[in-house]
Amino acid sequence: MDNTPHWDALWRNVHLATMTDGSAGYGEILNGALAVKNGQIAWLGAEKDVPAGAQATETHDGQGAWLTPGLIDCHSHIVYAGNRSNEFEARLNGVAYEAIARAGGGILSTVNATRAASFDDLLAQSLPRVKRLLAEGVTTLEIKSGYGLDLETEAKMLRVARHIGDALPVTVRTTFLGAHAVPLEYKGRADDYVTHVCEVMLPALHAEGLVDAVDAFCENIGFSATQTERVFKAAAQLNLPVKLHAEQLSDQNGAALVGRFNGLSADHLEHLSDAGITAMAAHGTVAVLLPGAYYFLRETKLPPVQALREAGVPMAVSTDCNPGTSPMTSLLLAMNMACTMFKMTPQEALAGTTVHAARALGLHDRVGQLAVGQMADLALWQIDRPADLAYAMGQNMCAGVVKAGRLI
Amino acid sequence: MDNTPHWDALWRNVHLATMTDGSAGYGEILNGALAVKNGQIAWLGAEKDVPAGAQATETHDGQGAWLTPGLIDCHSHIVYAGNRSNEFEARLNGVAYEAIARAGGGILSTVNATRAASFDDLLAQSLPRVKRLLAEGVTTLEIKSGYGLDLETEAKMLRVARHIGDALPVTVRTTFLGAHAVPLEYKGRADDYVTHVCEVMLPALHAEGLVDAVDAFCENIGFSATQTERVFKAAAQLNLPVKLHAEQLSDQNGAALVGRFNGLSADHLEHLSDAGITAMAAHGTVAVLLPGAYYFLRETKLPPVQALREAGVPMAVSTDCNPGTSPMTSLLLAMNMACTMFKMTPQEALAGTTVHAARALGLHDRVGQLAVGQMADLALWQIDRPADLAYAMGQNMCAGVVKAGRLI
Ligand SMILES: [Zn+2]
Ligand SMILES: [Zn+2]
Repeated sequence: MDNTPHWDALWRNVHLATMTDGSAGYGEILNGALAVKNGQIAWLGAEKDVPAGAQATETHDGQGAWLTPGLIDCHSHIVYAGNRSNEFEARLNGVAYEAIARAGGGILSTVNATRAASFDDLLAQSLPRVKRLLAEGVTTLEIKSGYGLDLETEAKMLRVARHIGDALPVTVRTTFLGAHAVPLEYKGRADDYVTHVCEVMLPALHAEGLVDAVDAFCENIGFSATQTERVFKAAAQLNLPVKLHAEQLSDQNGAALVGRFNGLSADHLEHLSDAGITAMAAHGTVAVLLPGAYYFLRETKLPPVQALREAGVPMAVSTDCNPGTSPMTSLLLAMNMACTMFKMTPQEALAGTTVHAARALGLHDRVGQLAVGQMADLALWQIDRPADLAYAMGQNMCAGVVKAGRLI
Repeated sequence: MDNTPHWDALWRNVHLATMTDGSAGYGEILNGALAVKNGQIAWLGAEKDVPAGAQATETHDGQGAWLTPGLIDCHSHIVYAGNRSNEFEARLNGVAYEAIARAGGGILSTVNATRAASFDDLLAQSLPRVKRLLAEGVTTLEIKSGYGLDLETEAKMLRVARHIGDALPVTVRTTFLGAHAVPLEYKGRADDYVTHVCEVMLPALHAEGLVDAVDAFCENIGFSATQTERVFKAAAQLNLPVKLHAEQLSDQNGAALVGRFNGLSADHLEHLSDAGITAMAAHGTVAVLLPGAYYFLRETKLPPVQALREAGVPMAVSTDCNPGTSPMTSLLLAMNMACTMFKMTPQEALAGTTVHAARALGLHDRVGQLAVGQMADLALWQIDRPADLAYAMGQNMCAGVVKAGRLI
């Protein structure tokens, strides 16, 4: 019997930032190599330790570049129609938010545009944004619904999200965010809308296989903790994991609610309390930090990064790509903002877009680390050291992407 | 005699943001066309008004894209060697700035790396940064010296800058910034170093044709107003225009000093006084705003944008690309930051990277506007409206660049 490995591909002359759980720093392996078989990582280590006689169908010389897990953007509203740069411009010219809302602006303008768009239109408008992320080494992307607020349009958004996952070299995880805002049809009847979300929309979308997780916007200007809990219960009945837009503008005890449902993540968290941190630590909830929205909204209250760090809560970082509060299509920029504004370290920022982002999507066993058995989703970087990824502003150092073992 | 125009190229089916001086808004011409002859703009207007019988050697269908002047980055330190992401990372891990400086960090680490680099090394390290700017429609770029602090290295930096202008489709303007910091050789003898700058370095670099303008860092941690004035006098004797790093960390009355020398621009300006604004308005000094450094240094004192606006001081926006305080290679991101953090309007941000940036370089009659007789430096954008340029974070919507009439 022949025990000599025969791999599909071998990457040699690379430095590895493995980002494995519990590793110190970046889990660096200098002068390393990584082998792929059947779309998975089959071997990795120092290049000098490649087993004697090992063969690979393809061998790639990384020329001293760094190899990291493919990046994971774990919180996005990237599928939408329309363009709200006009509101951005109006506000900067002194028009009040209320006047913009009265003129049909705000989130409902995106809802109207998304409802009006065909599947093809919606896809065509979303693709350039997704491609921009992918050009920076993103290989896994969460996409939320939430600009439909009716069954037909929520389904259309999630079908577009699934199609993106089929058409492009990216794993897409869909999140149903019916409880994003109250649509005009339900104005003043938020409870009735939540009933519609729980009893009509979620079961139908789930039956079509469109829902990987369920989210809500728990906020004074969104849904109450009680309403959010109803959504979570409906999700639990379908065995769907939950996550939450929590404590962005005020403390609603949303993070603790996620904990009680053993949810995946609580996201934003600028107004998170100590009790919320304790609950998250107890339940292994990931804190998804979204510096793009903090920046774009000129917020001043920082999320409690040091307390999360001390409590051992895993922190992820994401673009929150959306037209109203974070029109951002660069995960590297989100990493820079996480360091510059939230004082995360470059190592935490990279963990936040790899291993911890995977956990926020329930994909921790499959992606986000360079480890044997993980999917061979890799990003190759022309950098001196991993800190460069978070340090540079506007430079894309990505020199190659491997998706499920295949060089893109 | 034949008066029918025969152009080298005609761009049709485009919307124009002419950004001409004194025009309202963006100086829009919807459904426009623009003709080029001998590298200059020969005609522009509504497409329906193209003169009957006009011919063009090449005709380009813009497919409804927007055409703006090529962008101008009027303040950069983009030519340097070395990488200070390690300092960025150390600071975020709690190492004090003083400890980093004692370990050879800070600006002097860039000086050491730049001195040690060969011409070819320095060029190779700088090119990826420059190319990134160019990919976003930049056609004119100012490059400062200031990491040599000795004649040999300052000359090397400026020669690399000139070479970039020869090798790539970009107009480069060089600025001698010998008075950037006091080199170790002159520690405690700043006045002697200024003498060396004025009497040895500047004349020699000027004689080699390497200096388009002269700059200094006027600050408590840089050079005093008196020392700066000596540098400006030396520049004036050579008929070289001046500009200044002014009022970034404290008010040194630097902007007024620039005014007295009829200088081109005062840059940074977070601590600019009312008297400084009055002086700038009186002398037509451009205010170059650098939000990347404000952001990266987590500053909280905003430059007086509203007062500058009311005083009619032209405002430019630039990356300030440099390894210590603004490792930014996206002028579009600088525009977004100018709007988001400094509350400039998207129109002001675009004027700040076109017409006003040209004025900050003394190139106002040649570039920065779409107008007959200006150099045909153009950027084509896949956008719905000009505000999109400042609105998006991390998206590069540039669909084409024309340099001196030639499609790149
Ligand atoms: Zn969100
Ligand atoms: Zn500068």
